[in-house]
Amino acid sequence: MSEILARVAATIEGRKPENGGDPTTSYAAKLFAKGDDAILKKIGEEATETVMAAKDARVSGDTSKVVYEVADLWFHSMLLLAKFDLSPQQVLDELARREGVSGLEEKAARKDA
Amino acid sequence: MSEILARVAATIEGRKPENGGDPTTSYAAKLFAKGDDAILKKIGEEATETVMAAKDARVSGDTSKVVYEVADLWFHSMLLLAKFDLSPQQVLDELARREGVSGLEEKAARKDA
Amino acid sequence: MSEILARVAATIEGRKPENGGDPTTSYAAKLFAKGDDAILKKIGEEATETVMAAKDARVSGDTSKVVYEVADLWFHSMLLLAKFDLSPQQVLDELARREGVSGLEEKAARKDA
Amino acid sequence: MSEILARVAATIEGRKPENGGDPTTSYAAKLFAKGDDAILKKIGEEATETVMAAKDARVSGDTSKVVYEVADLWFHSMLLLAKFDLSPQQVLDELARREGVSGLEEKAARKDA
Repeated sequence: MSEILARVAATIEGRKPENGGDPTTSYAAKLFAKGDDAILKKIGEEATETVMAAKDARVSGDTSKVVYEVADLWFHSMLLLAKFDLSPQQVLDELARREGVSGLEEKAARKDA
Repeated sequence: MSEILARVAATIEGRKPENGGDPTTSYAAKLFAKGDDAILKKIGEEATETVMAAKDARVSGDTSKVVYEVADLWFHSMLLLAKFDLSPQQVLDELARREGVSGLEEKAARKDA
Repeated sequence: MSEILARVAATIEGRKPENGGDPTTSYAAKLFAKGDDAILKKIGEEATETVMAAKDARVSGDTSKVVYEVADLWFHSMLLLAKFDLSPQQVLDELARREGVSGLEEKAARKDA
Repeated sequence: MSEILARVAATIEGRKPENGGDPTTSYAAKLFAKGDDAILKKIGEEATETVMAAKDARVSGDTSKVVYEVADLWFHSMLLLAKFDLSPQQVLDELARREGVSGLEEKAARKDA
């Protein structure tokens, strides 16, 4: 896995209540304490902010907010994975599987059919 | 960058119209040809499907669909990045920056304040 | 209830499988036949399209697409209500309750607190 | 228009800054003061909460939260309409137009094609 994704995943893991994460000082620990729904709401919110950032970037020409919002979206996806005891490596494996077995393109195309 | 993310990003890059991507055979090329809005709609749709998969997983106990939908969400995020000539490495760098400079947690907490 | 909402709700009701709705000729009947998830995906998609339309309207000055997308969002909300044997009147009653009892504003503010 | 929608729209109109809406006491006035993006984020968030409520309702059998979340979604849609000086009547007119001219079903089906 990407070293960065591994490091972020490790940090997130340490914020779980059972690992001593403190909701009063940690944003991730606070979301874990609130439960699934709080994280899922953030997924929806960050996806919306990604859409807004892309629309804004076409007007301003500044794409840095797109990077920023996709980072937020991926970060909250990783909180969700951790909440379900899943790892970003499994997401990468799934992406690799689609590339490898039948071509990422065909996979998606079949799904879209 | 993760080798897998790099490979997926390279595949996606090759599906751009200017790189000979063929909308009749490639799902990514088809989305590129349709333009920004088609990709942005998919971001919203895949985020919704991630939420649904998480809800379903709590009932069924089967978390594989969560992995699958997050992979879809990340894949379409990467299509968006490519559409704006951005790279997943920039997203990883942003995640690393938050870790490194001030702590991922504080960064997010400030934003949430 | 608004006469229009009542008429749309009645049309939708008639598209349910148990009321003879035909998935081969009716869009609503097709979504009912596909089940909850198909409708929920549309809710997420139409919300995203509403956001995109609002962003576009600020650039173009043409707000007609905002009206169009909110109509889509409300229509698919009504499909969801019908799927759960709920009525738009119950949504209006809830809106009225918030106005009446404690002020719409206070209600929302409390929720946001 | 539905009397209730008209009353809610009138309340919302009164919360605009130019009509003396006070962001310190009114939730709607606060969102108006924050601008388009704050309202659009809420549209995305409320759509996500509607999806979550529907999933929960299938498990619990309690559909009241679906009504509640659709009311939230419609309320924030009305804030968006007001921000663009649009009225819920225009949304109802659009729904009626689809019913009347060519059939709501055909309209949506064409769009989906």
